[in-house]
Amino acid sequence: MHVAKTIEEMKELRNSIPSGKKVGFVPTMGYLHEGHLSLLRKARKENDVVILSIFVNPIQFGPNEDLDKYPRDFERDEKLAKEEGTDIIFYPTPEQMYPENYSSYVITEGLDRHLCGAKRPGHFKGVMTVVLKLFNITKPHNTYFGQKDIQQARIIEQMIKDFNLDINFHICPIVREEDGLAMSSRNVYLSKEERKQAIALYKGIQKGKELFTNGERNAEIIKKEVEEVVKSFNLAKIDYVEIVDYTTMAPVKTLGDKSVLALAVYFGKTRLIDNTILE
Amino acid sequence: MHVAKTIEEMKELRNSIPSGKKVGFVPTMGYLHEGHLSLLRKARKENDVVILSIFVNPIQFGPNEDLDKYPRDFERDEKLAKEEGTDIIFYPTPEQMYPENYSSYVITEGLDRHLCGAKRPGHFKGVMTVVLKLFNITKPHNTYFGQKDIQQARIIEQMIKDFNLDINFHICPIVREEDGLAMSSRNVYLSKEERKQAIALYKGIQKGKELFTNGERNAEIIKKEVEEVVKSFNLAKIDYVEIVDYTTMAPVKTLGDKSVLALAVYFGKTRLIDNTILE
Repeated sequence: MHVAKTIEEMKELRNSIPSGKKVGFVPTMGYLHEGHLSLLRKARKENDVVILSIFVNPIQFGPNEDLDKYPRDFERDEKLAKEEGTDIIFYPTPEQMYPENYSSYVITEGLDRHLCGAKRPGHFKGVMTVVLKLFNITKPHNTYFGQKDIQQARIIEQMIKDFNLDINFHICPIVREEDGLAMSSRNVYLSKEERKQAIALYKGIQKGKELFTNGERNAEIIKKEVEEVVKSFNLAKIDYVEIVDYTTMAPVKTLGDKSVLALAVYFGKTRLIDNTILE
Repeated sequence: MHVAKTIEEMKELRNSIPSGKKVGFVPTMGYLHEGHLSLLRKARKENDVVILSIFVNPIQFGPNEDLDKYPRDFERDEKLAKEEGTDIIFYPTPEQMYPENYSSYVITEGLDRHLCGAKRPGHFKGVMTVVLKLFNITKPHNTYFGQKDIQQARIIEQMIKDFNLDINFHICPIVREEDGLAMSSRNVYLSKEERKQAIALYKGIQKGKELFTNGERNAEIIKKEVEEVVKSFNLAKIDYVEIVDYTTMAPVKTLGDKSVLALAVYFGKTRLIDNTILE
């Protein structure tokens, strides 16, 4: 396994891959958990060469967000990536990615109006910009994103289409702890009691699914019942409970072909998200 | 010479070019003049395959600008392109480039604050977005832009660097009519009298150059003298006369290593631009 710490190194490694070989790419911010590993496994199965990027992208964090304390452990990540058969880790510095006079960015007009886009201004600009750069540096045939960050996944899927990139986009299922909590690098922030109550999101999602399966299509009714479930956990503070159309990421009144029930909930300063596709 | 009218057709043609061959790309809005042809000639000299795009990009025009009346003549362009040894013309429709639910855009933060960027809000967002798409569709090794649109050229040069694209950027000299007027597709809008007076821009530039050559480095003084020259033509209405740093495209008080004297002047409804690099 190679570790490329500069863009030049990564590009050289990429250019040395014979043109017939399929390249799979998994972009991450590191501190790998089973969710990330499931992406690596799928990439390993479907490609000749697997590239993992580890980069805590400063420009996708807001001024009052957790950039500085975001968990990092490169040695552990390296070991885990190797075990999953990763061929190359791209591990650049912020100075490599955003040198002096850096000034070009990618934005979406529409897909970031709701959910996390509304709550974290500039977040998806940062995500789109870094992912486009990573795509251009690693030139993958396939790329793998987790459904947990569903708005991010949808925005990147659309960017690939809009910018005419020759990349196959794969969205992979949410991986959960035994009690249902969605895997996230941010789960380490939780106190013992918060961790216990963090299943609030999953319980809410289960309630929403149940209502949908039983035929409920009124978004207000579903949202209200989900909110009640979440609120029954006393440490949970709802940031949003929303139902949106998968394609437009805009709220719906009546659930259609492919809707998304999405939640963001604070436990203390820790903000957790979760979602399920209702179709 | 091939003419590709869809993205799929263009991509197929591009993919059929053997990987050892160098591809040069000249993006235009058509209605080709000697300026465009000089780019094609340079591309022809330096590459195995030359691709020209002709696309009047709707998203780079403001609501009160000249999108509808922008001059078009594909048959003439086709003939001229063929004479210059162009291999492929990419000639898509707006619907091909911006299908339903299109939502991803490229912006610059900084380089569009002055000159045309300040006067034409959203213009460079449209330019950057379409050029990135065209790059992704045509995958060139070399691309050629005219110095006449110097802020555009600088922004694209920076985008290539920022987005880690493997494309060599070439900026080519302004081509002028015999009396000094910079070639532009928009020159056809000028009445006979306006056309005569349109040399105001070139005369202003000559004055600026002369002052610079004689050692003047105070931007205010140069700008004032240039403005006086332009104003001596009674049909000329100055939009801006500015001196900026080449790298940042921001105004300077004292001319440095590489400054740009840039002008935008209206003749009736027709807006002409011109510039010179002072170094």
